[in-house]
Amino acid sequence: MINKLIAKIQSTNAPIVAGLDPMMKFVPGHIQKKAFDEFGETLEGAAEAIWQYNKGIVDAICDLVPAVKPQVAMYEQFGIPGMIAFQKTVDYCKEKDLVVIGDVKRGDIGSTSEAYAVGHLGRVTVGSRSYSGFGEDFATVNPYLGSDGITPFIKVCKEEKKGIFVLVKTSNPSSGEFQDQMIDGRHLYELVGEKVSQWGAECMPDEGSYSYVGAVVGATYPEQGRVLRRIMPRTFILVPGYGAQGGKGADLVHFFNEDGLGAIINSSRGIIAAWQQEKYARYGEAGYAEAARMAVLDMREDIAQALQARS
Amino acid sequence: MINKLIAKIQSTNAPIVAGLDPMMKFVPGHIQKKAFDEFGETLEGAAEAIWQYNKGIVDAICDLVPAVKPQVAMYEQFGIPGMIAFQKTVDYCKEKDLVVIGDVKRGDIGSTSEAYAVGHLGRVTVGSRSYSGFGEDFATVNPYLGSDGITPFIKVCKEEKKGIFVLVKTSNPSSGEFQDQMIDGRHLYELVGEKVSQWGAECMPDEGSYSYVGAVVGATYPEQGRVLRRIMPRTFILVPGYGAQGGKGADLVHFFNEDGLGAIINSSRGIIAAWQQEKYARYGEAGYAEAARMAVLDMREDIAQALQARS
Repeated sequence: MINKLIAKIQSTNAPIVAGLDPMMKFVPGHIQKKAFDEFGETLEGAAEAIWQYNKGIVDAICDLVPAVKPQVAMYEQFGIPGMIAFQKTVDYCKEKDLVVIGDVKRGDIGSTSEAYAVGHLGRVTVGSRSYSGFGEDFATVNPYLGSDGITPFIKVCKEEKKGIFVLVKTSNPSSGEFQDQMIDGRHLYELVGEKVSQWGAECMPDEGSYSYVGAVVGATYPEQGRVLRRIMPRTFILVPGYGAQGGKGADLVHFFNEDGLGAIINSSRGIIAAWQQEKYARYGEAGYAEAARMAVLDMREDIAQALQARS
Repeated sequence: MINKLIAKIQSTNAPIVAGLDPMMKFVPGHIQKKAFDEFGETLEGAAEAIWQYNKGIVDAICDLVPAVKPQVAMYEQFGIPGMIAFQKTVDYCKEKDLVVIGDVKRGDIGSTSEAYAVGHLGRVTVGSRSYSGFGEDFATVNPYLGSDGITPFIKVCKEEKKGIFVLVKTSNPSSGEFQDQMIDGRHLYELVGEKVSQWGAECMPDEGSYSYVGAVVGATYPEQGRVLRRIMPRTFILVPGYGAQGGKGADLVHFFNEDGLGAIINSSRGIIAAWQQEKYARYGEAGYAEAARMAVLDMREDIAQALQARS
């Protein structure tokens, strides 16, 4: 799956993942109205609204981006109907041949971590049969519990040719509280980065390529990105924090290797709620999907210029 | 909710939470057969089997224990039908007046963490209405992202009178990889413990009582438990790792305060799969729920003796 992701980044020329994190306040009024008319102001109504909203965006950008990253919390908040909308979104994106990164940030130990891995990336056994639960291609994973939390995911990834992105240095302001603590002269995130590199060393589909054990490093920390790029040379980095959180194209260059690969930049509200920005206001509510498309094109250009400027 | 938990611990005289982590291999054959006869060897069939299994256990132990802790991964692996079984389990336990700790180990930032908090502990707004998603009483939360990941949970807890347990020192063998790293002469878990204590200081329902921002510290690390008990004097500690993972009654005493409170010990397979242990084999498959009841009684005795021995 990491090879598919790389091939799609190359063919679209866009190291971009669109974060499908639907908040109700992003969903145009006409979509909300239609959903509520049909299902009432219920969890089912909310789930229908975010699903239709997602569908419009995916249709508008699926030829431009290699991947999408639905944030499961935004679905989980609507209970079971929300989880059904999550599953429909994953399935629809896979139909459109997009690589789906489930932003689930799961992390537990042993058989529990394996259950998460099976549910999101693998197949669960029921009697003599087996089924896919949610069926994403990648999942994000929290490292706090150490190897016991990661190796069950790697086992499933190996079997299913899937992948994970392990949180290393997150994009939020308080990420330093623990991640920046100094341990023998190195930051905790460096230590986690080294571990990610080690975990990934035996998860290389092709010699000299990238591992399917990736890392999450926030665009809001470009200097840390530069350090981590060196510590994890064969690790693909998923970079959140571009756009709404303050990361800019110029901040991103350190996340990429010389080959122009090694990183994929996420933007969520910068794409899916573009219609609410002044810059794309001309599209209006009705043109929210077109606004998302324009935002992707602008982001692609911003990244391309930044990468060109460094060489 | 922390006061309700404490009151129930006192009335049952059992600082015990039963981990409802149903793996198919624990589910007696007759329950599996009935579920598969009705729904086939499908995700729905598996979900029905674990739900019926849970129901039997809850009926058998609900007068003995103050709380249950369903591990969501064990449900999530079965996709949507699994999540429905999770919800049914939560609802049923609440009907039985048990305190429900959702072992979800979620953790993200800002609006995303808030969405998790809303989905599991609060109410989500849909138009002019609001709904409870999964509706647990407590949730476990991962601290790796710092305050940005915790404060949204605290906000919802404050509104809804719910609580969280933050991972501090987990019970697994590799928990030390990051958690035991030394920072200025202290372990990372101590630093996290201090933060938990700080976060909890303003979350005290009654003066001198316990905070509704709790901590998770594994029974497998009794010495670290002793240190953390001192660092977090008003923090309730959820202690996994008793029984199957190797923790014993005598290891638990340091987790309790002088008042005999401050900790609640989890046992999962030690209770729910007791029928598979030699000790309870006489109950057989058909008596799996009765075996669970006996295991709770034995565990209660083990803890009581250990606490008595220290005084």
